[in-house]
Amino acid sequence: MPSSKKLTGKPDEIAAFLDRFDVFLFDCDGVLWRGDKLLPKVVETLEMLRSKGKQVVFVTNNSTKSRRAYVSKLNSLGIPASADEIFGSAYSAAIYISRVLSLPKDKKVYVIGEAGIEEELASEGVSFFGGTDPAERAEISEADYEAIGPNASVGVVLVGLDRGINYRKLARAHGYLQHPETRFLATNIDSTFPTHGGLFPGAGSMSAPLTYMTGREPLSLGKPSQAMMQAIEGRFKFDKKRTCMVGDRINTDIKFGIEGGLGGTLGVLTGVSKEEEFLNGEVVPEAYVDKLADLLG
Amino acid sequence: MPSSKKLTGKPDEIAAFLDRFDVFLFDCDGVLWRGDKLLPKVVETLEMLRSKGKQVVFVTNNSTKSRRAYVSKLNSLGIPASADEIFGSAYSAAIYISRVLSLPKDKKVYVIGEAGIEEELASEGVSFFGGTDPAERAEISEADYEAIGPNASVGVVLVGLDRGINYRKLARAHGYLQHPETRFLATNIDSTFPTHGGLFPGAGSMSAPLTYMTGREPLSLGKPSQAMMQAIEGRFKFDKKRTCMVGDRINTDIKFGIEGGLGGTLGVLTGVSKEEEFLNGEVVPEAYVDKLADLLG
Repeated sequence: MPSSKKLTGKPDEIAAFLDRFDVFLFDCDGVLWRGDKLLPKVVETLEMLRSKGKQVVFVTNNSTKSRRAYVSKLNSLGIPASADEIFGSAYSAAIYISRVLSLPKDKKVYVIGEAGIEEELASEGVSFFGGTDPAERAEISEADYEAIGPNASVGVVLVGLDRGINYRKLARAHGYLQHPETRFLATNIDSTFPTHGGLFPGAGSMSAPLTYMTGREPLSLGKPSQAMMQAIEGRFKFDKKRTCMVGDRINTDIKFGIEGGLGGTLGVLTGVSKEEEFLNGEVVPEAYVDKLADLLG
Repeated sequence: MPSSKKLTGKPDEIAAFLDRFDVFLFDCDGVLWRGDKLLPKVVETLEMLRSKGKQVVFVTNNSTKSRRAYVSKLNSLGIPASADEIFGSAYSAAIYISRVLSLPKDKKVYVIGEAGIEEELASEGVSFFGGTDPAERAEISEADYEAIGPNASVGVVLVGLDRGINYRKLARAHGYLQHPETRFLATNIDSTFPTHGGLFPGAGSMSAPLTYMTGREPLSLGKPSQAMMQAIEGRFKFDKKRTCMVGDRINTDIKFGIEGGLGGTLGVLTGVSKEEEFLNGEVVPEAYVDKLADLLG
């Protein structure tokens, strides 16, 4: 079984590792912060990388926030960042719909999800409905039962985390997915969403009933799906061989980097995956550190 | 591959078939009615069976109605019936919890579901919360995030069709299911629910996200689960070998009868399954008729 190498903090070893990369893709929760608490010396580490001319990109499966909202979150934790450096699954989905699917202008996206998705679809000029529209909060009515069904004008059903999920939304999405040409996309398919120190239903739990009903699996635009890597490539020009993915989760972050053919992957032990998994697993990062700040040497 | 025999309506043949059984278990939708329209001569056929001293039991996966409510529905369609003749999945779940699990009096059931479930749990003296309680309609709050989690006093999470499903209910059920001793039950796991001439999300689509999150499969108390057969046996005394299941769906009704070791199964062509499936399938009824009224000869 493959095993990962621990970077022990010797300055030469760290320098040799960093020199191999021009771009660092960062997972956020479990790498930069945990819950709402910044991890030690994260700001200094990012500053060091930027001072060496490295490009940093924050790659997150959280679809509830747009890039703009993510900048606010990073800044509120004391991390300088610009919208150009953020790549969230809502943006990934918007890019995929506008630039890969090239959704015709007369087709719309039916959204199960929150404001982050709407903001990113709007930024790409994609027409959508559903989402946070107050009308979506209604219970299913007699008129709905008659009206719900496939509709050729709905090109995509896009499902992300939606804390306003209800029966009517699931029924409408199921109806639209009866149309063979309506695509089924998800911002990500994480079963749970870490918040407030616990795990709560994630985006994948909003699409799971639709898969159960239709037998169709959504194309996920979040890690570890390579559709997200394609969307990142559509947005940034970068040399994959000189890019390193940094993350705490083997089955999303590390898998994403390895399957994407990046030059390197770096695990951190401040999140979900344990050292044992980095040492003995089917999928392991090339190298790992206890915490991100160990890159300071 | 096994094949089913068509009863062509010759009086001797029909009489010989009926003589083998004392009890007939009937699926309802697709057998007695379709949508809200009674099928031809259903009332006369049931009358004929009763006049021959046969016991009839109506077995339905619909958990939204209690036995009492089902009697009203049957009567409104012109079918005489008493609550004793109804066996719905909500009642099945209530019986299972009270008589098979023998849920201790200090434990409660958390319900995702509608009034039929609540009424049947109450009829068996089972304590429950959730369900149609207006407080359950709330959006998830900051206080909820802190409070949600496993709770030893919740002995069962029971999931049925709930047209008031929301994020908070899914989060609470997920929290309770973290407790290893909290049982996970479903009234049934049908992915869709036929109504208003279409298919809408069914009970199984309410439990699907919980299975996706927890990796736990619910024990289903509806057809074709044999837990429902056990519950029927706990309620009625009958000789399985002299009992016939009548239904339109191979994968629920007919499978239920065959796996339950009933003396016979009879398919009808007024519902979901097609003649081709009765003639060539992995699972086929022993015999079939075009419509229930063919039993009149």
